[in-house]
Amino acid sequence: MTSVLKIGIAGLGTVGGGVLRLLQAHADLLAQRSGRRIVVAAVSARDRHRDRGVPLDGVRWYDDAVALAADPEIDVVVELIGGANGVAKTVCETAIAHGKPVVTANKALLAVHGPDLAARAEEAGVALAFEAAVAGGIPAIKGVREGLAGNRIDGVFGILNGTCNYILTEMRTTGREFAEVLAEAQKLGYAEADPSFDVDGVDAAHKLAVLAALAFNARVEFDDLHIEGIRQVSALDIAYAQELGYRIKLLGIARRTEQGLSLRVHPCMVAEASPIAHVEGVFNAVVAQGDFVGQVMMTGRGAGAGPTASAVVADLVDLARGLKVPVLGIPAARLERAAVLPMDHRRGAYYLRLMVVDRPGVIADVAAAMRDQQISVESLLQRGRSPGDAVPLVIVTHETDEAAMTRLLAALGALDAVLEPPHVIRIEDL
Amino acid sequence: MTSVLKIGIAGLGTVGGGVLRLLQAHADLLAQRSGRRIVVAAVSARDRHRDRGVPLDGVRWYDDAVALAADPEIDVVVELIGGANGVAKTVCETAIAHGKPVVTANKALLAVHGPDLAARAEEAGVALAFEAAVAGGIPAIKGVREGLAGNRIDGVFGILNGTCNYILTEMRTTGREFAEVLAEAQKLGYAEADPSFDVDGVDAAHKLAVLAALAFNARVEFDDLHIEGIRQVSALDIAYAQELGYRIKLLGIARRTEQGLSLRVHPCMVAEASPIAHVEGVFNAVVAQGDFVGQVMMTGRGAGAGPTASAVVADLVDLARGLKVPVLGIPAARLERAAVLPMDHRRGAYYLRLMVVDRPGVIADVAAAMRDQQISVESLLQRGRSPGDAVPLVIVTHETDEAAMTRLLAALGALDAVLEPPHVIRIEDL
Repeated sequence: MTSVLKIGIAGLGTVGGGVLRLLQAHADLLAQRSGRRIVVAAVSARDRHRDRGVPLDGVRWYDDAVALAADPEIDVVVELIGGANGVAKTVCETAIAHGKPVVTANKALLAVHGPDLAARAEEAGVALAFEAAVAGGIPAIKGVREGLAGNRIDGVFGILNGTCNYILTEMRTTGREFAEVLAEAQKLGYAEADPSFDVDGVDAAHKLAVLAALAFNARVEFDDLHIEGIRQVSALDIAYAQELGYRIKLLGIARRTEQGLSLRVHPCMVAEASPIAHVEGVFNAVVAQGDFVGQVMMTGRGAGAGPTASAVVADLVDLARGLKVPVLGIPAARLERAAVLPMDHRRGAYYLRLMVVDRPGVIADVAAAMRDQQISVESLLQRGRSPGDAVPLVIVTHETDEAAMTRLLAALGALDAVLEPPHVIRIEDL
Repeated sequence: MTSVLKIGIAGLGTVGGGVLRLLQAHADLLAQRSGRRIVVAAVSARDRHRDRGVPLDGVRWYDDAVALAADPEIDVVVELIGGANGVAKTVCETAIAHGKPVVTANKALLAVHGPDLAARAEEAGVALAFEAAVAGGIPAIKGVREGLAGNRIDGVFGILNGTCNYILTEMRTTGREFAEVLAEAQKLGYAEADPSFDVDGVDAAHKLAVLAALAFNARVEFDDLHIEGIRQVSALDIAYAQELGYRIKLLGIARRTEQGLSLRVHPCMVAEASPIAHVEGVFNAVVAQGDFVGQVMMTGRGAGAGPTASAVVADLVDLARGLKVPVLGIPAARLERAAVLPMDHRRGAYYLRLMVVDRPGVIADVAAAMRDQQISVESLLQRGRSPGDAVPLVIVTHETDEAAMTRLLAALGALDAVLEPPHVIRIEDL
């Protein structure tokens, strides 16, 4: 490599545009920090004529991103196309095969093919950098892989999807239902037209898979993750959560246990007094638990052009400075597939809301079903009287396990007095 | 360097013992992550016979830490002696002069001599790493210097002293006064026998000077910082803060302004709704404001053997991996002395508590004095009636500047009805 670092950017959407603007705005500062100038030598995108706010005169244009990745004039390929397979994957593989480092913001690709790509990159002796793939502008990858390199990491968890956190925050502060807030978020551009990737927890799960691989230096199979989204969270549950001293957050949680890794994304109730409860709106949070350091939390904006560009450029500065780090914390060849704890083994407390007929004897039936599963009650609320009609019955359990809860829900569902499938939210003591 | 990284540790107090234990506990894991084994080859400390929980057989012992720093068998020198001058400085200079990288946890040394040591290290072509010098186990140095390398950083601030944060948290939750909580903290080992370094803000200022140099890529003179501690914070002010929707925190604040850098450590009122208000007890927080990334906050334990050892070892892993980064973010030779904004120019709101004689006309006098300085009232509280005796009069101002407040305090101090020097706490909108 010469004293100039020539980069090719594949994909000029929101993030790509942000990277172009950042590199132009801070060209001199980045040269001072990196010891060399970072220059955009080539780009590839679908629409050649869109205005990205930065002149692209003299920048080579590729209609074919894979051809860009093979361009011998380019030192580093920045992949901002997205998607677990298809052209994004080919671009990364092509760059690596041509001995070029890759910087990518592609969480889906990393979650599904991370260990394979890491092995290819390490065999080729090039870097594969992906700070932008997890939690946007938060330096979470660097924080875990380098900043906490002295620790055995026993857990990593966080708020990994800003769209969900925005929706849950709005639901809490306005009392509105999910569908209404989602529609508004779509209008404001905080949620996609097809929101399922975000609100069904898939995006958070991609990020969690990457974080878990790094934290545990393990080969994590994406299919091993338990994934739930936030569509079932109701305004009523959010109000009860507040009354009980909790907030509802969609968390990704990865924990090392004696029986294997617990890997899951689902709505959680967290204590109002815990710091993560106060990470609101579009902000993300990543918490790592190390055996020497204890808990370290990092918060910031998890998406958007500016924060994501910040992460992409941090990787470029690292490359310009010559950073060499194993992609997933240890050499890819030594990553071992992690044993996974079945979801049935999850232990903790549960929030349970039943819609029941308001008549004497219902609580006795519910209590008997709980006794049969050896699940004990921490608190019970039955508000509002409406004899003969449906009223909510809210129960917080003491610690139990998911298998017992599953049996309890089946038993409760079979009671005449229980009118809807029970609503359950896991309580996490973080 | 060979495939083993041989380190010499100068200073085996709390942190040094923690580093020994961490390196022993995670020898294999660190070798996987670093690509080489990290071995303690030599140590130096005052007491040869103290048990540090780790056998030191086969480790060379030096009574003279400077001789250790010159040992040709050692690849890296870890300086854990402390102090801005004296032997710690000589150890670092000697190691650099002998072409050895240095890892240090010494905030005082960095705050006072950072740019000079950085220049020496860069001339010698060796690293000078100091993650442990700021905010203990939080990877704040790496986060700012590498993780946010794509940004112009406009501000960096935080809770940088765990002793003060513990005392303020205890005062708030128990209602007790400073002296009582300090005495208890000393008994528990959370505060030193001579607490002035912590409670007078000097330790936080050392860390802020280092963070500011990194964030602004500037030469920061320690004497340019405005420093106040927490001795004047009373239980009464903490109670009023709570009533007004604030919490009191000792913050270090560094901001880029058009007239120069604002560099200050003092008690602040922060909104109860802000995330930093919920960083409690011995936890630290570092917040950086980047032009592309927005605000990123990192929290964790700011002191103690485990967290500090975690940071020291992260630096060792970086060195073993061959990381090369300019010590203060850009080459030391290019660091320029920063212009500094005089404290008089600080703008913001103020909390003001006067002890006044409870008689008609006092508020009119106070309001007239405020009008004369063009300072307007956001809210005013006078609780409790005790005609003829002293009662607290609490005022929150709208935004004004420090110079106007200084004039106001002089004017108020001259009023007959004002019985004590006014208590003032700056309100920070972070």
